[in-house]
Amino acid sequence: MSLMEALQWRYAAKRMNDGKVPRQSLDSILEAVHLAPSSYGLQPYTVLVVEDPTLRERIRCAACDQPQVSECSHLLIFATWTEVDGRHVDELIALTAAARGLDPKELEGYRQSLHAAVAGFATPEGRHHWAARQAYIALGTALTAAAAERVDASPMEGFDPPALDALLGLEEKGLRSVVLLALGYRDIGRDRLAGLAKVRWPRERVVLEWSGV
Amino acid sequence: MSLMEALQWRYAAKRMNDGKVPRQSLDSILEAVHLAPSSYGLQPYTVLVVEDPTLRERIRCAACDQPQVSECSHLLIFATWTEVDGRHVDELIALTAAARGLDPKELEGYRQSLHAAVAGFATPEGRHHWAARQAYIALGTALTAAAAERVDASPMEGFDPPALDALLGLEEKGLRSVVLLALGYRDIGRDRLAGLAKVRWPRERVVLEWSGV
Repeated sequence: MSLMEALQWRYAAKRMNDGKVPRQSLDSILEAVHLAPSSYGLQPYTVLVVEDPTLRERIRCAACDQPQVSECSHLLIFATWTEVDGRHVDELIALTAAARGLDPKELEGYRQSLHAAVAGFATPEGRHHWAARQAYIALGTALTAAAAERVDASPMEGFDPPALDALLGLEEKGLRSVVLLALGYRDIGRDRLAGLAKVRWPRERVVLEWSGV
Repeated sequence: MSLMEALQWRYAAKRMNDGKVPRQSLDSILEAVHLAPSSYGLQPYTVLVVEDPTLRERIRCAACDQPQVSECSHLLIFATWTEVDGRHVDELIALTAAARGLDPKELEGYRQSLHAAVAGFATPEGRHHWAARQAYIALGTALTAAAAERVDASPMEGFDPPALDALLGLEEKGLRSVVLLALGYRDIGRDRLAGLAKVRWPRERVVLEWSGV
Protein backbone atom coordinates (compact mmCIF):
# COMPACT_ATOMS: atom_id res chain seq x y z
CA MET A 1 0.00 0.00 0.00
CA SER A 2 1.48 3.36 -0.98
CA LEU A 3 1.50 6.25 1.45
CA MET A 4 -1.27 7.92 -0.55
CA GLU A 5 -3.40 4.78 -0.32
CA ALA A 6 -2.67 4.70 3.41
CA LEU A 7 -3.82 8.31 3.81
CA GLN A 8 -6.98 7.51 1.85
CA TRP A 9 -7.56 4.44 4.01
CA ARG A 10 -7.21 6.26 7.32
CA TYR A 11 -10.02 8.07 9.10
CA ALA A 12 -10.64 9.08 12.70
CA ALA A 13 -12.31 5.93 14.01
CA LYS A 14 -14.87 6.71 16.69
CA ARG A 15 -15.25 3.10 17.77
CA MET A 16 -12.42 0.62 18.13
CA ASN A 17 -12.47 -3.11 18.72
CA ASP A 18 -10.00 -3.54 21.62
CA GLY A 19 -7.43 -5.13 19.27
CA LYS A 20 -3.83 -4.71 20.42
CA VAL A 21 -1.34 -2.89 18.24
CA PRO A 22 1.73 -5.14 17.92
CA ARG A 23 4.88 -3.87 19.57
CA GLN A 24 6.69 -3.48 16.25
CA SER A 25 3.97 -1.24 14.76
CA LEU A 26 3.74 0.79 17.97
CA ASP A 27 7.50 1.25 17.95
CA SER A 28 7.43 2.50 14.37
CA ILE A 29 4.79 5.08 15.25
CA LEU A 30 6.64 6.18 18.40
CA GLU A 31 9.91 6.38 16.50
CA ALA A 32 8.21 8.60 13.91
CA VAL A 33 7.20 10.89 16.78
CA HIS A 34 10.76 10.82 18.07
CA LEU A 35 12.12 11.76 14.63
CA ALA A 36 9.61 14.56 14.00
CA PRO A 37 11.29 17.88 13.27
CA SER A 38 10.70 20.90 15.50
CA SER A 39 11.62 24.54 15.86
CA TYR A 40 15.38 24.70 16.59
CA GLY A 41 15.22 20.95 17.23
CA LEU A 42 14.04 21.75 20.76
CA GLN A 43 11.10 19.32 20.51
CA PRO A 44 9.46 20.94 23.56
CA TYR A 45 6.93 18.22 24.32
CA THR A 46 6.58 14.72 25.69
CA VAL A 47 4.23 12.09 24.35
CA LEU A 48 2.84 9.87 27.09
CA VAL A 49 1.81 6.38 26.02
CA VAL A 50 -0.98 4.92 28.12
CA GLU A 51 -1.89 1.26 27.72
CA ASP A 52 -3.39 0.50 31.16
CA PRO A 53 -7.18 0.01 30.66
CA THR A 54 -8.12 1.23 34.14
CA LEU A 55 -6.27 4.47 33.65
CA ARG A 56 -7.77 4.90 30.19
CA GLU A 57 -11.24 4.53 31.70
CA ARG A 58 -10.44 7.39 34.04
CA ILE A 59 -9.03 9.47 31.20
CA ARG A 60 -12.22 8.84 29.24
CA CYS A 61 -14.12 10.80 31.91
CA ALA A 62 -11.93 13.82 31.12
CA ALA A 63 -12.37 13.24 27.38
CA CYS A 64 -16.10 13.76 26.86
CA ASP A 65 -16.71 10.02 27.36
CA GLN A 66 -15.33 9.21 23.90
CA PRO A 67 -15.40 5.39 23.57
CA GLN A 68 -12.17 5.12 21.60
CA VAL A 69 -10.24 6.18 24.71
CA SER A 70 -11.08 2.86 26.34
CA GLU A 71 -11.48 0.79 23.15
CA CYS A 72 -8.10 1.73 21.70
CA SER A 73 -4.90 -0.21 22.20
CA HIS A 74 -2.71 2.68 23.30
CA LEU A 75 -3.61 6.27 24.04
CA LEU A 76 -1.01 8.89 23.21
CA ILE A 77 -1.12 12.15 25.15
CA PHE A 78 0.84 14.97 23.54
CA ALA A 79 1.92 17.38 26.28
CA THR A 80 4.04 20.51 25.93
CA TRP A 81 6.78 21.44 28.35
CA THR A 82 5.61 24.28 30.56
CA GLU A 83 9.18 25.58 30.82
CA VAL A 84 11.55 25.90 27.89
CA ASP A 85 14.61 27.92 28.76
CA GLY A 86 18.35 28.34 28.49
CA ARG A 87 19.03 25.08 30.30
CA HIS A 88 17.30 23.20 27.50
CA VAL A 89 19.31 25.14 24.95
CA ASP A 90 22.58 24.25 26.68
CA GLU A 91 21.54 20.59 26.87
CA LEU A 92 20.68 20.59 23.18
CA ILE A 93 24.00 22.21 22.26
CA ALA A 94 25.89 19.61 24.32
CA LEU A 95 23.87 16.83 22.68
CA THR A 96 24.54 18.26 19.21
CA ALA A 97 28.26 18.58 19.84
CA ALA A 98 28.43 15.00 21.12
CA ALA A 99 26.33 13.55 18.28
CA ARG A 100 28.38 15.34 15.63
CA GLY A 101 31.81 15.10 17.21
CA LEU A 102 32.16 18.87 17.47
CA ASP A 103 33.75 21.14 20.01
CA PRO A 104 30.83 22.95 21.72
CA LYS A 105 32.75 26.21 21.12
CA GLU A 106 32.06 25.82 17.39
CA LEU A 107 28.36 26.05 18.25
CA GLU A 108 28.66 29.18 20.41
CA GLY A 109 26.99 31.52 17.90
CA TYR A 110 24.17 29.05 17.42
CA ARG A 111 23.86 28.62 21.18
CA GLN A 112 23.49 32.35 21.66
CA SER A 113 20.83 32.64 18.95
CA LEU A 114 18.86 29.81 20.57
CA HIS A 115 19.14 31.48 23.96
CA ALA A 116 17.75 34.65 22.44
CA ALA A 117 14.95 32.67 20.80
CA VAL A 118 13.73 30.92 23.94
CA ALA A 119 14.01 34.17 25.92
CA GLY A 120 12.08 36.01 23.24
CA PHE A 121 8.54 34.81 23.90
CA ALA A 122 6.44 37.74 25.10
CA THR A 123 4.38 35.55 27.46
CA PRO A 124 4.36 31.97 28.78
CA GLU A 125 1.14 31.52 26.79
CA GLY A 126 2.95 32.56 23.61
CA ARG A 127 5.62 29.98 24.32
CA HIS A 128 2.92 27.38 24.96
CA HIS A 129 1.35 28.05 21.56
CA TRP A 130 4.75 27.67 19.91
CA ALA A 131 5.37 24.41 21.76
CA ALA A 132 1.89 23.12 20.92
CA ARG A 133 2.52 23.73 17.22
CA GLN A 134 5.68 21.64 17.43
CA ALA A 135 3.68 18.86 19.10
CA TYR A 136 1.20 19.05 16.23
CA ILE A 137 3.99 18.42 13.72
CA ALA A 138 4.64 15.21 15.65
CA LEU A 139 0.90 14.50 15.65
CA GLY A 140 0.77 14.80 11.85
CA THR A 141 3.83 12.58 11.60
CA ALA A 142 2.32 9.98 13.94
CA LEU A 143 -0.98 9.95 12.05
CA THR A 144 0.85 9.31 8.80
CA ALA A 145 3.12 6.65 10.30
CA ALA A 146 0.10 4.90 11.84
CA ALA A 147 -1.66 4.84 8.47
CA ALA A 148 1.47 3.35 6.89
CA GLU A 149 1.32 0.62 9.57
CA ARG A 150 -2.40 0.20 8.91
CA VAL A 151 -3.12 1.14 12.49
CA ASP A 152 -6.13 3.35 13.10
CA ALA A 153 -5.41 6.65 14.77
CA SER A 154 -8.04 9.02 16.15
CA PRO A 155 -6.84 12.49 17.08
CA MET A 156 -8.91 14.14 19.82
CA GLU A 157 -9.01 17.75 20.95
CA GLY A 158 -12.32 17.14 22.72
CA PHE A 159 -11.08 16.73 26.28
CA ASP A 160 -10.53 18.84 29.37
CA PRO A 161 -6.78 19.57 29.51
CA PRO A 162 -6.71 20.90 33.11
CA ALA A 163 -8.73 17.86 34.31
CA LEU A 164 -6.45 15.45 32.47
CA ASP A 165 -3.35 17.26 33.73
CA ALA A 166 -4.67 16.99 37.29
CA LEU A 167 -5.52 13.30 36.89
CA LEU A 168 -2.02 12.45 35.69
CA GLY A 169 -0.14 14.97 37.82
CA LEU A 170 1.26 16.53 34.65
CA GLU A 171 1.73 20.03 36.06
CA GLU A 172 4.20 18.70 38.63
CA LYS A 173 6.05 17.03 35.77
CA GLY A 174 6.24 20.33 33.89
CA LEU A 175 3.78 19.13 31.25
CA ARG A 176 0.53 20.42 29.82
CA SER A 177 -1.64 18.21 27.61
CA VAL A 178 -2.64 19.57 24.20
CA VAL A 179 -4.01 16.73 22.08
CA LEU A 180 -4.72 12.99 22.29
CA LEU A 181 -4.26 10.22 19.76
CA ALA A 182 -5.96 6.85 20.17
CA LEU A 183 -4.18 4.00 18.37
CA GLY A 184 -6.02 0.79 17.66
CA TYR A 185 -8.33 -0.84 15.17
CA ARG A 186 -11.63 0.40 13.80
CA ASP A 187 -14.77 -1.52 14.81
CA ILE A 188 -16.50 -1.64 11.46
CA GLY A 189 -19.70 -3.05 12.93
CA ARG A 190 -20.16 -0.32 15.52
CA ASP A 191 -18.55 2.76 13.98
CA ARG A 192 -21.19 4.56 11.96
CA LEU A 193 -18.39 6.48 10.21
CA ALA A 194 -16.58 3.34 9.02
CA GLY A 195 -16.79 2.90 5.28
CA LEU A 196 -18.29 6.32 4.63
CA ALA A 197 -16.75 8.49 1.92
CA LYS A 198 -13.96 10.76 3.09
CA VAL A 199 -14.99 14.41 3.17
CA ARG A 200 -12.49 17.13 2.28
CA TRP A 201 -12.84 20.59 0.84
CA PRO A 202 -12.16 20.57 -2.90
CA ARG A 203 -8.41 20.38 -3.30
CA GLU A 204 -8.14 23.84 -4.87
CA ARG A 205 -9.57 25.30 -1.68
CA VAL A 206 -6.88 23.66 0.46
CA VAL A 207 -3.96 23.87 -1.94
CA LEU A 208 -3.69 26.96 -4.12
CA GLU A 209 -1.03 27.07 -6.78
CA TRP A 210 0.01 30.70 -6.89
CA SER A 211 0.03 32.32 -10.31
CA GLY A 212 1.05 35.86 -9.44
CA VAL A 213 0.83 38.65 -6.91
CA MET B 1 12.90 2.72 1.44
CA SER B 2 10.59 2.25 4.41
CA LEU B 3 8.87 5.22 6.01
CA MET B 4 11.25 4.97 8.99
CA GLU B 5 14.24 5.04 6.67
CA ALA B 6 12.68 8.05 4.94
CA LEU B 7 12.26 9.87 8.26
CA GLN B 8 15.88 9.08 9.14
CA TRP B 9 16.98 10.33 5.71
CA ARG B 10 15.16 13.65 5.93
CA TYR B 11 16.54 16.78 7.55
CA ALA B 12 15.81 20.47 7.18
CA ALA B 13 18.13 21.36 4.29
CA LYS B 14 19.45 24.90 4.60
CA ARG B 15 20.87 24.96 1.07
CA MET B 16 19.14 23.52 -1.98
CA ASN B 17 20.42 22.98 -5.50
CA ASP B 18 17.65 24.50 -7.65
CA GLY B 19 16.52 21.03 -8.79
CA LYS B 20 12.87 20.82 -9.79
CA VAL B 21 10.52 18.49 -7.94
CA PRO B 22 8.69 16.42 -10.59
CA ARG B 23 4.99 17.07 -10.90
CA GLN B 24 4.08 13.58 -9.72
CA SER B 25 6.06 13.92 -6.46
CA LEU B 26 4.70 17.42 -5.87
CA ASP B 27 1.18 16.15 -6.43
CA SER B 28 1.68 13.37 -3.89
CA ILE B 29 2.87 15.86 -1.27
CA LEU B 30 0.01 18.27 -2.00
CA GLU B 31 -2.50 15.43 -1.92
CA ALA B 32 -1.14 14.43 1.49
CA VAL B 33 -1.83 17.99 2.64
CA HIS B 34 -5.31 17.78 1.16
CA LEU B 35 -6.00 14.52 3.01
CA ALA B 36 -4.63 15.71 6.37
CA PRO B 37 -7.18 15.39 9.17
CA SER B 38 -8.34 18.44 11.10
CA SER B 39 -10.59 19.46 13.94
CA TYR B 40 -14.20 18.75 12.85
CA GLY B 41 -12.84 18.30 9.33
CA LEU B 42 -12.97 22.09 8.94
CA GLN B 43 -9.39 22.27 7.62
CA PRO B 44 -9.30 26.03 8.27
CA TYR B 45 -6.22 26.86 6.21
CA THR B 46 -4.96 27.20 2.67
CA VAL B 47 -1.55 26.13 1.47
CA LEU B 48 -0.18 28.43 -1.21
CA VAL B 49 2.29 26.86 -3.62
CA VAL B 50 4.80 29.33 -5.03
CA GLU B 51 7.06 28.26 -7.87
CA ASP B 52 7.82 31.63 -9.51
CA PRO B 53 11.51 32.46 -8.79
CA THR B 54 11.02 36.22 -8.84
CA LEU B 55 8.29 36.04 -6.26
CA ARG B 56 10.36 33.66 -4.14
CA GLU B 57 13.21 36.19 -4.18
CA ARG B 58 10.83 38.79 -2.77
CA ILE B 59 9.52 36.34 -0.18
CA ARG B 60 13.11 35.62 0.85
CA CYS B 61 13.42 39.25 2.01
CA ALA B 62 10.55 38.60 4.44
CA ALA B 63 12.10 35.30 5.51
CA CYS B 64 15.39 36.35 7.13
CA ASP B 65 17.17 35.95 3.78
CA GLN B 66 17.12 32.16 4.07
CA PRO B 67 18.68 30.79 0.85
CA GLN B 68 16.40 27.77 0.58
CA VAL B 69 13.48 30.11 -0.20
CA SER B 70 15.05 30.90 -3.57
CA GLU B 71 16.98 27.64 -4.03
CA CYS B 72 13.99 25.37 -3.49
CA SER B 73 11.72 24.07 -6.23
CA HIS B 74 8.40 25.06 -4.67
CA LEU B 75 7.70 27.09 -1.55
CA LEU B 76 4.60 26.14 0.43
CA ILE B 77 3.00 28.84 2.58
CA PHE B 78 0.62 27.49 5.20
CA ALA B 79 -1.94 30.20 5.98
CA THR B 80 -4.89 30.01 8.35
CA TRP B 81 -8.30 31.40 7.49
CA THR B 82 -8.88 34.61 9.43
CA GLU B 83 -12.62 33.88 9.56
CA VAL B 84 -14.10 30.50 10.41
CA ASP B 85 -17.81 30.73 11.07
CA GLY B 86 -21.24 29.22 10.61
CA ARG B 87 -21.09 29.63 6.84
CA HIS B 88 -18.14 27.25 6.73
CA VAL B 89 -20.01 24.82 8.93
CA ASP B 90 -23.03 24.89 6.64
CA GLU B 91 -20.81 24.38 3.59
CA LEU B 92 -19.09 21.43 5.27
CA ILE B 93 -22.42 19.86 6.21
CA ALA B 94 -23.68 20.25 2.63
CA LEU B 95 -20.43 18.73 1.33
CA THR B 96 -20.67 15.85 3.80
CA ALA B 97 -24.29 15.12 2.90
CA ALA B 98 -23.43 15.15 -0.82
CA ALA B 99 -20.31 12.98 -0.46
CA ARG B 100 -22.13 10.41 1.65
CA GLY B 101 -25.51 10.46 -0.06
CA LEU B 102 -27.27 11.65 3.09
CA ASP B 103 -30.18 13.95 3.69
CA PRO B 104 -28.68 17.08 5.35
CA LYS B 105 -31.46 16.78 7.97
CA GLU B 106 -29.75 13.63 9.27
CA LEU B 107 -26.75 15.82 10.09
CA GLU B 108 -28.72 18.51 11.92
CA GLY B 109 -27.45 17.60 15.39
CA TYR B 110 -23.90 17.49 14.13
CA ARG B 111 -24.40 20.81 12.35
CA GLN B 112 -25.58 22.44 15.54
CA SER B 113 -22.63 21.13 17.55
CA LEU B 114 -20.22 22.46 14.91
CA HIS B 115 -21.96 25.84 14.96
CA ALA B 116 -21.50 25.93 18.73
CA ALA B 117 -17.85 24.95 18.35
CA VAL B 118 -16.91 27.67 15.87
CA ALA B 119 -18.86 30.24 17.88
CA GLY B 120 -17.14 29.10 21.04
CA PHE B 121 -13.70 30.66 20.64
CA ALA B 122 -13.20 33.34 23.29
CA THR B 123 -11.16 35.55 20.94
CA PRO B 124 -10.16 35.69 17.26
CA GLU B 125 -6.60 35.00 18.45
CA GLY B 126 -7.77 31.82 20.17
CA ARG B 127 -9.40 30.73 16.92
CA HIS B 128 -6.19 31.54 15.07
CA HIS B 129 -4.17 29.31 17.41
CA TRP B 130 -6.65 26.48 16.86
CA ALA B 131 -6.47 26.96 13.09
CA ALA B 132 -2.66 27.13 13.17
CA ARG B 133 -2.50 23.80 15.00
CA GLN B 134 -4.60 22.22 12.28
CA ALA B 135 -2.22 23.63 9.68
CA TYR B 136 0.66 22.07 11.59
CA ILE B 137 -0.97 18.63 11.32
CA ALA B 138 -0.85 19.19 7.56
CA LEU B 139 2.75 20.37 7.87
CA GLY B 140 3.72 17.15 9.67
CA THR B 141 1.87 15.15 7.03
CA ALA B 142 3.58 17.04 4.20
CA LEU B 143 7.03 16.56 5.76
CA THR B 144 6.46 12.84 5.99
CA ALA B 145 5.03 12.57 2.49
CA ALA B 146 7.98 14.54 1.10
CA ALA B 147 10.44 12.20 2.81
CA ALA B 148 8.59 9.21 1.32
CA GLU B 149 9.04 10.84 -2.10
CA ARG B 150 12.71 11.52 -1.28
CA VAL B 151 12.08 15.22 -1.67
CA ASP B 152 13.79 17.51 0.82
CA ALA B 153 11.51 19.65 2.90
CA SER B 154 12.64 22.54 5.12
CA PRO B 155 10.05 23.93 7.51
CA MET B 156 10.57 27.60 8.41
CA GLU B 157 9.05 29.65 11.18
CA GLY B 158 11.77 32.29 10.79
CA PHE B 159 9.91 34.84 8.72
CA ASP B 160 7.87 37.98 9.22
CA PRO B 161 4.22 36.92 8.85
CA PRO B 162 2.75 40.45 8.58
CA ALA B 163 5.36 41.38 5.95
CA LEU B 164 4.67 38.21 3.96
CA ASP B 165 0.92 38.70 4.26
CA ALA B 166 1.30 42.26 2.96
CA LEU B 167 3.53 41.15 0.07
CA LEU B 168 1.03 38.55 -1.09
CA GLY B 169 -2.14 40.45 -0.18
CA LEU B 170 -3.17 37.59 2.08
CA GLU B 171 -5.23 39.68 4.51
CA GLU B 172 -7.60 40.64 1.68
CA LYS B 173 -7.91 36.95 0.85
CA GLY B 174 -8.82 36.19 4.48
CA LEU B 175 -5.52 34.42 5.08
CA ARG B 176 -2.71 34.73 7.62
CA SER B 177 0.61 32.93 7.10
CA VAL B 178 1.87 30.69 9.90
CA VAL B 179 4.68 28.51 8.56
CA LEU B 180 6.64 27.88 5.35
CA LEU B 181 7.89 24.68 3.79
CA ALA B 182 10.56 24.71 1.09
CA LEU B 183 10.48 21.63 -1.18
CA GLY B 184 13.50 20.76 -3.27
CA TYR B 185 16.80 18.95 -3.15
CA ARG B 186 19.65 19.33 -0.67
CA ASP B 187 22.89 20.84 -1.97
CA ILE B 188 25.33 18.49 -0.32
CA GLY B 189 28.33 20.58 -1.35
CA ARG B 190 27.08 23.81 0.17
CA ASP B 191 24.90 22.72 3.09
CA ARG B 192 27.11 22.44 6.15
CA LEU B 193 24.32 20.41 7.81
CA ALA B 194 24.19 17.78 5.06
CA GLY B 195 25.48 14.44 6.19
CA LEU B 196 25.71 15.37 9.87
CA ALA B 197 24.22 13.04 12.45
CA LYS B 198 20.58 13.71 13.30
CA VAL B 199 20.16 15.21 16.77
CA ARG B 200 17.15 14.28 18.86
CA TRP B 201 16.53 14.12 22.60
CA PRO B 202 16.87 10.55 23.87
CA ARG B 203 13.70 8.76 22.89
CA GLU B 204 12.58 8.26 26.50
CA ARG B 205 12.49 12.03 26.90
CA VAL B 206 10.18 12.46 23.93
CA VAL B 207 8.11 9.31 24.32
CA LEU B 208 7.26 8.19 27.82
CA GLU B 209 5.52 4.87 28.31
CA TRP B 210 3.27 5.42 31.29
CA SER B 211 3.53 2.88 34.05
CA GLY B 212 1.13 4.32 36.61
CA VAL B 213 -0.34 7.46 38.10
